[in-house]
Amino acid sequence: MKEKAIILLSGGLDSATCLAIAKSKGYECYAMSFRYGQRHTIELEKAKAIAKEANVKEHIIVDIDLRSFGGSALTEDIDVPKKSSIDEVEENIPITYVPARNTIFLSFALGWAEVKKAYKIFIGVNAIDYSGYPDCRPEYIKSYENMANLATREGVEGRKLTIETPLLDITKGEIIKTGLSLGVDYSKTITCYDPVDGKSCGRCDSCLLRLKGFEEAGVKDPIEYL
Amino acid sequence: MKEKAIILLSGGLDSATCLAIAKSKGYECYAMSFRYGQRHTIELEKAKAIAKEANVKEHIIVDIDLRSFGGSALTEDIDVPKKSSIDEVEENIPITYVPARNTIFLSFALGWAEVKKAYKIFIGVNAIDYSGYPDCRPEYIKSYENMANLATREGVEGRKLTIETPLLDITKGEIIKTGLSLGVDYSKTITCYDPVDGKSCGRCDSCLLRLKGFEEAGVKDPIEYL
Repeated sequence: MKEKAIILLSGGLDSATCLAIAKSKGYECYAMSFRYGQRHTIELEKAKAIAKEANVKEHIIVDIDLRSFGGSALTEDIDVPKKSSIDEVEENIPITYVPARNTIFLSFALGWAEVKKAYKIFIGVNAIDYSGYPDCRPEYIKSYENMANLATREGVEGRKLTIETPLLDITKGEIIKTGLSLGVDYSKTITCYDPVDGKSCGRCDSCLLRLKGFEEAGVKDPIEYL
Repeated sequence: MKEKAIILLSGGLDSATCLAIAKSKGYECYAMSFRYGQRHTIELEKAKAIAKEANVKEHIIVDIDLRSFGGSALTEDIDVPKKSSIDEVEENIPITYVPARNTIFLSFALGWAEVKKAYKIFIGVNAIDYSGYPDCRPEYIKSYENMANLATREGVEGRKLTIETPLLDITKGEIIKTGLSLGVDYSKTITCYDPVDGKSCGRCDSCLLRLKGFEEAGVKDPIEYL
């Protein structure tokens, strides 16, 4: 029987690549997405299409409401900052940061992993082109894994769960090259913080990092921009 | 200005006591409860009453759906086991265990703490009469705290957040005595895993531990039993 893995799937480029990597390693894949009050629900449509194409065993979308405590431009009615070039991408933590988002997502993944008896959780965090989020750092992931192994029945009963971060140390360009070699169709992904009619703005931090990645990979980004 | 604290409030005896302790230490209290698909929503009514009586600054109820991945008698349609005495309370992890529940609850509390600039999260876990849950153990809580300090913007910027567990090492009887000394009205709390018309069953693990606690404290439990 195949080993199982939970994959956090946002509909973005990184998590789609992460899913392809998990699949290439032979795991039976369980994809988990969140409806968390994000302003752009198009990413959930993308997540569904990616999960379907990857032929995952199960894909669930969990409803949670991060708006109930506010605090981010991704879930509140604050304008997403636009830039004219990659040089303006912030080094500090940007206002699009959602408090404790990865911690909350990983915690749901942990619960599902316990129910499914999966011992791997894949998350597409990246410490290089990471846009300054504290919960994308390697020391955070390691610490989460330690905690997870004390939190669950499986942890108590002895089998170790690991948080897999195959994208942690590679550039956006390398992520894209890896995904292309595994057959990821990046036209099915979306990255923009502020898309209009399904088209990406090309000027938010997230778009600028994506475009730089495709440039590095020497490939044209197949999605549409405004 | 008062320091702020987030208090996880379930409507049960332990968290009501925890809130009273946080208040007695002078914190401005922010209470957080969850609608998580539990079978007995009466506990949320109790949580509201307790929060109101304690005059908290804010009380939010966060909607999450733990049923989406199943796995527990508290959220699924499995019978809650009934016992005839405290001696039958399980030493192993019982089927009423909800996978990763405290991890998920603490993660929402962490997000709210970051938004509110609170550096204390109170949770009423207990390692003595704890009914065998892995996520009530002191080593789990310590590990969660370490992770939390790497997860957030505040963690990055240097101020340490702590998870406060004032009930960790005391018996149920001592919890009740502490609460009574702080004026907690235990008639407003509910502990039963399987209440009927607001009355507690008196025979589930949770009821049996509660009744033993009141016996230890030498006080009559003010709630109604079937």
